[in-house]
Amino acid sequence: MSPIAPVPVALIGLGGVGKAILSQLLTPPLASKFNVVLIANSRLALSLPAATGEAVTAANFLPTLEAQGKPYDVPSIVKLLASHADGKGVLIDSTGSDDVPAQYPAILAAGVHVVTPNKKGLSGTQQLYSDIQAASFPNTRSLLYGESTVGAGLPILSTLKDLVGTGDEIVKIEGVFSGTLSYIFNEYSKVEGGDVKFSDVVLIAKDKGYTEPDPRDDLSGTDVARKLTILSRLIPGTPVLAEGCFSVPTQSLVPPVLENASTKDEYLQRLAEGDEYFAALREEARKEGKVVRYVGVIDPKAGKVECKLGKYDFDHPFATALKGSDNIISFTTKRYSPQPLLVQGAGAGADVTAMGCTSDLLRIYERLRTVA
Amino acid sequence: MSPIAPVPVALIGLGGVGKAILSQLLTPPLASKFNVVLIANSRLALSLPAATGEAVTAANFLPTLEAQGKPYDVPSIVKLLASHADGKGVLIDSTGSDDVPAQYPAILAAGVHVVTPNKKGLSGTQQLYSDIQAASFPNTRSLLYGESTVGAGLPILSTLKDLVGTGDEIVKIEGVFSGTLSYIFNEYSKVEGGDVKFSDVVLIAKDKGYTEPDPRDDLSGTDVARKLTILSRLIPGTPVLAEGCFSVPTQSLVPPVLENASTKDEYLQRLAEGDEYFAALREEARKEGKVVRYVGVIDPKAGKVECKLGKYDFDHPFATALKGSDNIISFTTKRYSPQPLLVQGAGAGADVTAMGCTSDLLRIYERLRTVA
Repeated sequence: MSPIAPVPVALIGLGGVGKAILSQLLTPPLASKFNVVLIANSRLALSLPAATGEAVTAANFLPTLEAQGKPYDVPSIVKLLASHADGKGVLIDSTGSDDVPAQYPAILAAGVHVVTPNKKGLSGTQQLYSDIQAASFPNTRSLLYGESTVGAGLPILSTLKDLVGTGDEIVKIEGVFSGTLSYIFNEYSKVEGGDVKFSDVVLIAKDKGYTEPDPRDDLSGTDVARKLTILSRLIPGTPVLAEGCFSVPTQSLVPPVLENASTKDEYLQRLAEGDEYFAALREEARKEGKVVRYVGVIDPKAGKVECKLGKYDFDHPFATALKGSDNIISFTTKRYSPQPLLVQGAGAGADVTAMGCTSDLLRIYERLRTVA
Repeated sequence: MSPIAPVPVALIGLGGVGKAILSQLLTPPLASKFNVVLIANSRLALSLPAATGEAVTAANFLPTLEAQGKPYDVPSIVKLLASHADGKGVLIDSTGSDDVPAQYPAILAAGVHVVTPNKKGLSGTQQLYSDIQAASFPNTRSLLYGESTVGAGLPILSTLKDLVGTGDEIVKIEGVFSGTLSYIFNEYSKVEGGDVKFSDVVLIAKDKGYTEPDPRDDLSGTDVARKLTILSRLIPGTPVLAEGCFSVPTQSLVPPVLENASTKDEYLQRLAEGDEYFAALREEARKEGKVVRYVGVIDPKAGKVECKLGKYDFDHPFATALKGSDNIISFTTKRYSPQPLLVQGAGAGADVTAMGCTSDLLRIYERLRTVA
């Protein structure tokens, strides 16, 4: 058999995750399977190999991109990938933008495959989601994967697709989906006491780089709502979420007393004003022998998808097994009951998020190269 | 686009798992993707649709198979699958035999794909394993999947393949891989005391149908050694296991005093003679604040693959999180450390084992039907 041609790939978005994807793609064992033909940040795109002749790496690309890069638009990159000599290629959308996801239907319609850690497309409006579905397999030959949008590199979407695809019945999905909120509540509400203040924990999390620059972006629960939207849409019979994540009932962790803080700085300065609110929640749970966790829950039979503070018994896995900023996701199904199928581990971070994307790329490689 | 043709499938082996596979294949959502063209038990094969015209189901196949079935050999079934009008098909080997796995290289060489819950092939001699590899993707276009050989429907092999395939480095894999031994030790060695006898726990497990008819088949550790062999062979740099599972150092749980029991009945009658041995192990662990678990461990750097009794702290997930006959598998890697990636849930049972096979079939369906 002749050697299998590498699959052409273009990578848009070169933040922490994008750089980690580039690094994995340029290193064995992936380097022989993929051909990175273009990289781009928000302003400039660079075709590879670069004119300098020097090999571009995840560590050294910036000067070359700045020197040789050119302004670009996504349709030109799609054209490049659609007409590659080795067959249609893959666009990796590692941006955080809304603009690129809005173009997924057109990209897929051009026969170009999409891999993305960007939650905006799959958790956006039902209209966009339907358009993406209509433009991808099995409705067309184009593939779209977003494993890393939930749980980063953890096998969450693939597991759910297998359960549903083989005819299991989802009874309940419940989990701690935010690494930031996992860390905050693991530190704040422990089985074995401690009386740390909520504001202190948030500030420590911020110092460690676990939160967004404005912690309210995590504490709003929107990130968890995005992940639930993506999961929920894979389960037959769940409610239609017309406005995507914004249709998911989502409890905010910005306490009532702080809702009127108008700037990030004011919010951070006044953070301690919320301590009483959270102390009361913790105390109430402790009296019941429980800890507090911020969870996402999908209950198809009850037609419920929601993000909220939940209370869990001291011996529940969400109380005992969870450490650091780990995610834990529990699938209770007809087959997996009374004990659920559990997946746990780091749910954020550049390397593991990149791994979610590169394992999607492996899946595409296998699909495209099985029958050549 | 014209409708996608279903993939032809032949199923050999109609025990508990085989029946559950048949049931899943004949039910939506799988029924539209696969065409079951033949079923066979150890003696007879029946081509479908059957001549009676009545639809064969997992519940009613037996009388039809007995009435219309014919003695068969595997090569004839392979010929049928290799020349099907809808393209080359899949053979599901749901037997427990050594004979069918010995034919995998020939089956794959004929272009027929293989899905199997039978551990014998992938955990057999290195020679057979190499022959299977040489005859399958990426060395040929033929696909072989055995997800359910480890952890039944849990995403274990697929997770390991993704970790290795995207360039992560396996530091350690450690787990409770046997549902039977999980149940026995979860009951026998608890964080919160209890002085149940080992022989009593084994007999209860036997009564519940958790053990093989001769419990020594579980207590020998060979089943765990088979699973470790299959995992280990996916990790670059691990020791070559020339004789497969028989090359894995494996601690037997048949205590020294019972090694001379020559029959199952004698063994079961004398079971209590081993109680002192296990009580001493439990007591020793408890003094150290630990519980006893039967685990498989792979440590590529140390070149170690072994099955043994291990002791785990009272707050270790193997001590606290494990329930019933669940499996738990922990992947510590360069990316997933210090906290490991954990997968937990039912690791045995007909429905979840069948699901491991049918999710493999989905993978094959997607690969064959992406580019038609």
